[in-house]
Amino acid sequence: MAEKPQDVIFVGNKPPMSYVLAIITAFSSGNQKEITLKARGQAITTAVDVAEIARSRFIKDLKVTKIEIGTAEMPPREGETKSRMVSTIEITISK
Amino acid sequence: MAEKPQDVIFVGNKPPMSYVLAIITAFSSGNQKEITLKARGQAITTAVDVAEIARSRFIKDLKVTKIEIGTAEMPPREGETKSRMVSTIEITISK
Repeated sequence: MAEKPQDVIFVGNKPPMSYVLAIITAFSSGNQKEITLKARGQAITTAVDVAEIARSRFIKDLKVTKIEIGTAEMPPREGETKSRMVSTIEITISK
Repeated sequence: MAEKPQDVIFVGNKPPMSYVLAIITAFSSGNQKEITLKARGQAITTAVDVAEIARSRFIKDLKVTKIEIGTAEMPPREGETKSRMVSTIEITISK
């Protein structure tokens, strides 16, 4: 089997445009048809921004095909004992 | 026609639990089957938190039936001339 192109992009604290660029790069490779953006906590807003910027400004035929939300358990912060629950989002886009 | 119960909750800067409470109240009225959470900008993360808290901790048979993202145009801030684009989310939950 040929090597599989990157199909998941983890969205974190970088500016939205870094992730938009990663999407554009992945799709211009040619054989990439679908990418899933994953984010949690405050980065959820960034993930939505990334999908919207990519769709409205750069890749006109981009479609949001699936959005899922969920909850993940994070290990406790240093000095704390309770684990934290954090919301997550997965946005699948395809062209 | 009977009065329609509130079926849209706008999520803003309040703590997530205020919105969770609004959901619980709306659903306990009895004839409410579906609520849409609407949020934009940083409140998108709060809206996801609200849906997840309501589902995992309070209303066990709650289902997320639809999630949509989009972009809205906001009027320019005072002293600025350009309008701003802001991402939006709509999360529909039903039981």
